[in-house]
Amino acid sequence: MKQKALIIISGGLDSVTALYQATANYDVELGVSFNYSSKHNHKEIPFAKYHCIRMGVRHIVVNLDFMNEYFNSTLLRSGGMIPDGHYADAIMKQTVVPFRNGIMLSIAAGMAESLEISKIIIGAHFDDHGIYPDCREAFIKTMSNAVSLGTFNNTEILSPFQKMKKSEIVSLGNSLGVDFSRTWSCYKGREVHCGKCGTCIARKEAFISAGVNDPTVYAE
Amino acid sequence: MKQKALIIISGGLDSVTALYQATANYDVELGVSFNYSSKHNHKEIPFAKYHCIRMGVRHIVVNLDFMNEYFNSTLLRSGGMIPDGHYADAIMKQTVVPFRNGIMLSIAAGMAESLEISKIIIGAHFDDHGIYPDCREAFIKTMSNAVSLGTFNNTEILSPFQKMKKSEIVSLGNSLGVDFSRTWSCYKGREVHCGKCGTCIARKEAFISAGVNDPTVYAE
Repeated sequence: MKQKALIIISGGLDSVTALYQATANYDVELGVSFNYSSKHNHKEIPFAKYHCIRMGVRHIVVNLDFMNEYFNSTLLRSGGMIPDGHYADAIMKQTVVPFRNGIMLSIAAGMAESLEISKIIIGAHFDDHGIYPDCREAFIKTMSNAVSLGTFNNTEILSPFQKMKKSEIVSLGNSLGVDFSRTWSCYKGREVHCGKCGTCIARKEAFISAGVNDPTVYAE
Repeated sequence: MKQKALIIISGGLDSVTALYQATANYDVELGVSFNYSSKHNHKEIPFAKYHCIRMGVRHIVVNLDFMNEYFNSTLLRSGGMIPDGHYADAIMKQTVVPFRNGIMLSIAAGMAESLEISKIIIGAHFDDHGIYPDCREAFIKTMSNAVSLGTFNNTEILSPFQKMKKSEIVSLGNSLGVDFSRTWSCYKGREVHCGKCGTCIARKEAFISAGVNDPTVYAE
């Protein structure tokens, strides 16, 4: 019998691929998306719902309205303009939403315990680490220890892509039949992907590096 | 120059005493109360605000509406009846809100980073440990490590009452001039303290053990 799991799913290509992989290994009872008032939540969350429905997984959206009011980040609607450029550029630091993964994992931990689920899956990956402290392996491991100590059922965080590059996730998703045209990355959240912000550049490069056809429509 | 700090303050006697102690040692820039739809939030949060104003600390309330919808606990408005009895009784486990402290600490961490504050104070104490896994020292320490790893400014969680009994906190608060009649414990959140639930019993016992006059009006 498969173990029960909860997955945090944004609607980006990493977490959607994590969902497809997870359904093979776990009884995924719940997919949770967080609406934290980013400029692109309204573009990505419908894709999270689409893929959860397709995989037979119940999907919910948790609103974190306080972030827009009290957190500083250009990723948020209350923040300034999203910068163009590569993730490696120092300017991209302003897109970090402070401790966002910690907050999402904590809420997921409480929700999982309420549902008697002891595995939480998150699609953080290797390429995120330079810029986002709360995507790094050391953080995820320590947070998993904290969640285990702070719950009755010793809940564990699973981060299956921790050592993978984004291009490897594209290859895996492709092999699992993920329709990447129904995933969203662009931080700007406009009609189509801008093609110039950090996450658009990382998305483009991942498809090229994986040798997988990129179905994304980019403005440039 | 004092370091900047953020305090999580419920309006109970522990966190109010933590506030009075913290203002002596830190530049406390923000007091944060969480409205997580418990049966007693509406009784305790006004006291949190009262003491923050009195100590010259900005106070905000963060709403966590998702808890009432998705979390299981008799402490929540959506949960069943609050049981009577001592904390040591197994029945009290149903009052636990899964990973509540982890969630509050995570949100506080993101908020602190947005305000360039690197110290977060929480009033968890020794007597809470038996029943609440996310009040124990091992949890708080590991969570502090996770918060430090997941933020740019290496934010730290301070838990000054971790080794203190509730009666020692009453003695400390008394010496610091805390008006305990303006603090709230009772989980039932009625007009006056019920005197019979786990937290009322712990409150009563703490005043008796400290030899401090208990100004609380109890129904029984």
